[in-house]
Amino acid sequence: MKKILFLSFLFPAVVFAQSSDDSIFIKRISDDILQNGKAYELLHQLTKTIGGRLAGSPQFAKAIQWGKATFDKMGADKVYLQPCMVPHWVRNGKGDKVAVTSVNNKPELMPLDAYALGNSLGTPTESGVTAELFAVNDFDQLEKYKDKVKGKIVFYNYHFIPTNVSTFLSYADAGKYRWTGASRAAKYGAVGMIVRSMSIATDNNPHTGAMEYNDSFPKIPAAAIGLQDADKLWKLAQLSKTVKVNITTHGQMLPDVPAANVIAELKGTEHPEEIITVGGHLDSWDVNEGAHDDGTGVVHTMEVLRVLKALGYTPKHTIRFVLFADEEKSGRGADKYAAELKDKGEKPIFGFESDAGGFTPRGFSFHVPAETWGKLNAWKPLFEPYGGSAFVAGGGGADTEPLEKLFNTPVAELNPDSQRYFDIHHSRTDVFENVNRRELLLGAVNIAALIYMVDKYGL
Amino acid sequence: MKKILFLSFLFPAVVFAQSSDDSIFIKRISDDILQNGKAYELLHQLTKTIGGRLAGSPQFAKAIQWGKATFDKMGADKVYLQPCMVPHWVRNGKGDKVAVTSVNNKPELMPLDAYALGNSLGTPTESGVTAELFAVNDFDQLEKYKDKVKGKIVFYNYHFIPTNVSTFLSYADAGKYRWTGASRAAKYGAVGMIVRSMSIATDNNPHTGAMEYNDSFPKIPAAAIGLQDADKLWKLAQLSKTVKVNITTHGQMLPDVPAANVIAELKGTEHPEEIITVGGHLDSWDVNEGAHDDGTGVVHTMEVLRVLKALGYTPKHTIRFVLFADEEKSGRGADKYAAELKDKGEKPIFGFESDAGGFTPRGFSFHVPAETWGKLNAWKPLFEPYGGSAFVAGGGGADTEPLEKLFNTPVAELNPDSQRYFDIHHSRTDVFENVNRRELLLGAVNIAALIYMVDKYGL
Repeated sequence: MKKILFLSFLFPAVVFAQSSDDSIFIKRISDDILQNGKAYELLHQLTKTIGGRLAGSPQFAKAIQWGKATFDKMGADKVYLQPCMVPHWVRNGKGDKVAVTSVNNKPELMPLDAYALGNSLGTPTESGVTAELFAVNDFDQLEKYKDKVKGKIVFYNYHFIPTNVSTFLSYADAGKYRWTGASRAAKYGAVGMIVRSMSIATDNNPHTGAMEYNDSFPKIPAAAIGLQDADKLWKLAQLSKTVKVNITTHGQMLPDVPAANVIAELKGTEHPEEIITVGGHLDSWDVNEGAHDDGTGVVHTMEVLRVLKALGYTPKHTIRFVLFADEEKSGRGADKYAAELKDKGEKPIFGFESDAGGFTPRGFSFHVPAETWGKLNAWKPLFEPYGGSAFVAGGGGADTEPLEKLFNTPVAELNPDSQRYFDIHHSRTDVFENVNRRELLLGAVNIAALIYMVDKYGL
Repeated sequence: MKKILFLSFLFPAVVFAQSSDDSIFIKRISDDILQNGKAYELLHQLTKTIGGRLAGSPQFAKAIQWGKATFDKMGADKVYLQPCMVPHWVRNGKGDKVAVTSVNNKPELMPLDAYALGNSLGTPTESGVTAELFAVNDFDQLEKYKDKVKGKIVFYNYHFIPTNVSTFLSYADAGKYRWTGASRAAKYGAVGMIVRSMSIATDNNPHTGAMEYNDSFPKIPAAAIGLQDADKLWKLAQLSKTVKVNITTHGQMLPDVPAANVIAELKGTEHPEEIITVGGHLDSWDVNEGAHDDGTGVVHTMEVLRVLKALGYTPKHTIRFVLFADEEKSGRGADKYAAELKDKGEKPIFGFESDAGGFTPRGFSFHVPAETWGKLNAWKPLFEPYGGSAFVAGGGGADTEPLEKLFNTPVAELNPDSQRYFDIHHSRTDVFENVNRRELLLGAVNIAALIYMVDKYGL
């Protein structure tokens, strides 16, 4: 397009009519962040000087120090670490391998791009496990043919549902194969598990992510393969009498190690004992830089603190900025955070997490009492100019769940546009270069606006 | 994020309440496109087998043939070329050069990443034009210091306004420097013009685009440089007494050449003489693959035809799918299209263009009579599930302007999210790899839904 003189607007003009003070303050938030925002530079530091930071790893320990040092420079009233123990799973970076080794008993080596799943254990020997493949579309097929599973490696080729507009719905649907697929196959005697990656990308990068063993069954090795390789393997399985595959993984579960949540605080002037929590999780997977998951949530959190300080905002309630430990594998950081609130007799009035990526903001999902929706709907026009006005019912982030469980705290999460998220999620492409500066900053604008509104009016 | 069992929704559930038939049909459109859409594969063909296709070039001639052949396979009632002449500017790919050659009269070679602007002429000799730099922030500064401009090369370092949420507003504001800056400087005796690229990217890629000479003044060479180089050059100019720069360009305006709009038609069953136009422009700049500008508009147009045929939809009005010739340099294809409608006594009832990229859809901008807004606002809930419900007042695309001028036709344009658009617009990074498949398809879903609603209810 060349046209330079038209006047089409992506977002409607700022709504001054309904609440002039609020729309003016939110415009100040937006102007300051879009001009002076530091989230992108901070994300560069986190991703490029530390990189992947699996909870329990030395990189995670570095990230804790970086988070504290960064908060320290930002002028919070208080910055501290909240110690907790985290599980210590290691991939043992010797290379996860999945390969076809023979077709119809004729040797044929076809390596597939694969990652061991998080928490999955290494194969008994360095040469891995080699066995016949048993390919199924879903759990129904597994159950139907359970008698044939023994001694085989089960391959779940379950696809993301393409017709869901929100890719998170497809993830919620497919995720059980990654999470529980190994033990469900081991129950029938399978000796290994391969899963189609939790993605709808056009590339072949595999996607790792947590799995969980059911202690009643043998703990078999589990790996994810890329989508193109999954299609290839599925086709091969359909066309062949027997396909043999090898899985070689090196995962180990070591004793728990100390870690911490990193916390900064702005003290409330009117209700200091009432706590608004804003957070993201500091840990990531080890195969990438944890840029969108959840580096962007970390720097969103820092940006909200920065802008409130820059605008001289003094909150009524205490606002706590939290970088949670180990969202990916255990949720122990979040559990600790909520438990300590309880111990101290504090009152959490709102829990917010950004953990759905740093893509352009669409809105928020809220888990709040039904009667709160009237208030929220009245706020929506204030968010329209900044792209974040799609307020929908749903959950908060994983790290605010303990607040819900212990206190029934209203929670929310940022909903960035979801189309690109599962292209990069838990894969090697979740790197700084795949984050867009303005999209990231615009997310922070909407979050800061929401925190401001909740602090001012309650929920 | 690991959480796989939550139920947050990016978009609210399909609204069945208000117009069940329409929401069901639009869901069918969405399901079919997200499952069977061909836009991404077609874009791959256009960008990878043809690539950049400046109107008048041999590549553009190829694109016309590809467009017709593709439409022919899609089962339209009629496919034809609508011949028109287009201007024939050539860059003469010998490399556009901008470089600092001396600082305070001390030789110092500092090459800057640059593109000649479209329509700009080559320097008189192969060694280009070397002269003292005169750096200004904006036209006000140029006017203020106009006596100092003679014999110099003017550098406009005008920035995109960062606080506009829609980057299109910043483009509309800054674009005049690219468009008219050369002649405004030549008026005061400048011998060359350099402009900060029309972008707000974090990289240093230069962005070309059309400029126009005012025939009253000498036609001086004009080039755009990348943003980092612009910052460097500006700083150098502030810190130095004199900076000399060289511009070397090779542009030439050759005689007009024949080209064509490519048109496919679905004949209307009730009002065949009433025409709904859906289009994108087939030409692009020569420095990239013209992926977002406007390959995505081309394949959006094709996808709408595909899905309406796939669902067996028979329109009441004639729907014309148009790939316009030369939007970038002249608008001649669009002029021809509107003029021929007039000649034939046809009645255009709606003009639509997709020419703002293939990023995730936000909504549409409409230029329609005031009384139409009641109807449009009632349609918005139907678009919410697909992300395209931000209906705002504004213009249509450049290629529907002649319809507005000749017939006062209501027009609209797709508004994809704008944050990434000017990172890649008219630059070497506007390539297939920067288009996301699902974002592209979701744009087509919203366009097809709009065309369906306009065909069914009028505007």
